[in-house]
Amino acid sequence: MIYLDHAAATPLSQKAQEAMAGFWSEKFFNPSASYLPAVEVRGLYEQAKDDIAHSIGAKGVDLVITAGATESINLAFSSIQDTTAEVLISAVEHPSVLQTAQRFKNLKIIKVDKYGRIDLEDFKRKLSPKTQLISICFASSELGTIQPLSDIGRLVKAERQRRALNDEKTPLYFHSDASQGFGLLEMKVNRLGVDLLTLNSGKIYGPKGVGALYVGHNVKLQPLIYGGGQERGLRSGTENVPAVIGFAKATTEATKHLHSEYKRLKKLKTQLKNDLKDIPDLLFLGKEKNQLVNFLPISIPGLDAERLIFLLEDQDVYLSTGAACSANKRTVSQTLKAINLSEAEIAGSLRITLGKLNDEKNLKQAAKLIHQAIESERARVK
Amino acid sequence: MIYLDHAAATPLSQKAQEAMAGFWSEKFFNPSASYLPAVEVRGLYEQAKDDIAHSIGAKGVDLVITAGATESINLAFSSIQDTTAEVLISAVEHPSVLQTAQRFKNLKIIKVDKYGRIDLEDFKRKLSPKTQLISICFASSELGTIQPLSDIGRLVKAERQRRALNDEKTPLYFHSDASQGFGLLEMKVNRLGVDLLTLNSGKIYGPKGVGALYVGHNVKLQPLIYGGGQERGLRSGTENVPAVIGFAKATTEATKHLHSEYKRLKKLKTQLKNDLKDIPDLLFLGKEKNQLVNFLPISIPGLDAERLIFLLEDQDVYLSTGAACSANKRTVSQTLKAINLSEAEIAGSLRITLGKLNDEKNLKQAAKLIHQAIESERARVK
Repeated sequence: MIYLDHAAATPLSQKAQEAMAGFWSEKFFNPSASYLPAVEVRGLYEQAKDDIAHSIGAKGVDLVITAGATESINLAFSSIQDTTAEVLISAVEHPSVLQTAQRFKNLKIIKVDKYGRIDLEDFKRKLSPKTQLISICFASSELGTIQPLSDIGRLVKAERQRRALNDEKTPLYFHSDASQGFGLLEMKVNRLGVDLLTLNSGKIYGPKGVGALYVGHNVKLQPLIYGGGQERGLRSGTENVPAVIGFAKATTEATKHLHSEYKRLKKLKTQLKNDLKDIPDLLFLGKEKNQLVNFLPISIPGLDAERLIFLLEDQDVYLSTGAACSANKRTVSQTLKAINLSEAEIAGSLRITLGKLNDEKNLKQAAKLIHQAIESERARVK
Repeated sequence: MIYLDHAAATPLSQKAQEAMAGFWSEKFFNPSASYLPAVEVRGLYEQAKDDIAHSIGAKGVDLVITAGATESINLAFSSIQDTTAEVLISAVEHPSVLQTAQRFKNLKIIKVDKYGRIDLEDFKRKLSPKTQLISICFASSELGTIQPLSDIGRLVKAERQRRALNDEKTPLYFHSDASQGFGLLEMKVNRLGVDLLTLNSGKIYGPKGVGALYVGHNVKLQPLIYGGGQERGLRSGTENVPAVIGFAKATTEATKHLHSEYKRLKKLKTQLKNDLKDIPDLLFLGKEKNQLVNFLPISIPGLDAERLIFLLEDQDVYLSTGAACSANKRTVSQTLKAINLSEAEIAGSLRITLGKLNDEKNLKQAAKLIHQAIESERARVK
């Protein structure tokens, strides 16, 4: 198998799996119980939260554990209860941000350039005294384009200071969905200037079904889920201890190998790009300078990406068109429309995302098979 | 270790763990991806949902998978969006039902008898033409008292027919939290007459962090979590495939051994009850006739249950006071107040819940150690 879809799902790492092993049928206790083995489990759970939080320069108590990035994003939006509030998002957000944001009547979409990076001038124009929530991804899930979060963070801070000086009481929160990018790049909440940050375990070789929301001290959230009062009342339900243990292990592993893995992926991406660049009419989407090191989105206008995927599947090569995590696969990608691709360019677009399952050898082979698939498809449609 | 807190958490069964094993780093694909291995994972996921659903006489498509019972309960309550709607719950609901229901202004609490069983006459009095949602647990999480759901189901049906005849448009839904009882007793949605049923994996030797809501065809829910449109748009987020596979395995195992495990637990409960009944002043709470076979809640008025728990913990015996899954452990149990226990009776109450980790031998030993702890505590407070 040659897997080129690491942005859609990652295999659980051996270390994360080992870390979780003792929590299935041994340390299985409900962390809210008062006897010692349960109290110990509670301690390990809180330690795991600390480990995750430290990687973004925060503390465990600043995190709300959720069932994944989507819930984390929805919870972040609960910071604003008034559905008439003005909300800003970028044009390249994941459906989980877009669908959640669309419940606000005064939603403004920030334009992006042809590489999918947000237009800071458009952001400045749209940021108004009425803006209450800004949600901009760390990196686009389709293009891997890294957004200028620190720049936005500074503008948010300035606007907040202006409001304070003018005694304006309208709150302003800055959220970022870091599902893509977390575990690949250094990420500190203070440096980014975010109040809310969404993290995902299933994209960083941790278990599925768990994520987190970093919540700055100035933010007041409304729970989506009420009950026993876990996670400081913000997310009730018995804690999913094994998943959080695995998430923490995956996080610390990613942090530990951040620089070496970056270098390795950089080299692999360069190799694959070189091996694909001779394909006639092929476009590389995004701009390498501001792109996640594991992303290589491409387009072959005039060909049908879905057909290419099926041809490659026969060769045991797996990759996707657009975002695979949407259940509405047949809708046209908002991101690719936002960067002004033509219909033919969108129809021919593939998302290659690299990761631990790739090496020099299987990417050489992948390049060869992609060449062949494209030639064969071109011959068919001629 | 002698574990007597199976209602708080259960160890993952070996079979469930084995069933999940292939989904960590092999069949790890995002079920929304379009290539064959992902499509296969999608198929196995849907099959697992079918397996869970069949155990309650439903189909996989009738289930919404959630991150646990608490989310499932919250989602059930989304069937009513008008917070002024009249809602009925029993006086012995778990905090997850109570906290969710308290957001409705016209909440009515159905009285229970001294065993914690709801008073059907009080229910009839409170069920009005304005009632929109009824939520009654299958069995109380503190007493194990099984509620007369089929009787309530019939009353709900009659009220619905009355409304139809009178052309009244007010909807009426019947939800039950079956977190306690599922996997121990036969449970078919048609026979119970419920429109919504909450199931929990973590209480039936399945993995934590996953549950389900059965949704009858007449019910329209509002998602709590928006995004990629998974679970027919009712619960977005990448599917937690390994957890659902484990949940399904735990369900089919429970169903397969339902009768033999019932008999075994019945025998164990009788033995333990006999071994405890000589303790002076000891009260058995609830009534055996309508009590889950694994529940043995007791009270020793005049003693402090928390201290008994710590004494027993030293002997490697683990049990709880009240419901352990609440993070607000210091609040007084609503359930024990509802059955009119005195303050001394509440303060001295322990919840013993049996399960797979118990056998004749360790329960003999438990009885002996409980006797000793009580004697020692009595000597101290004398």
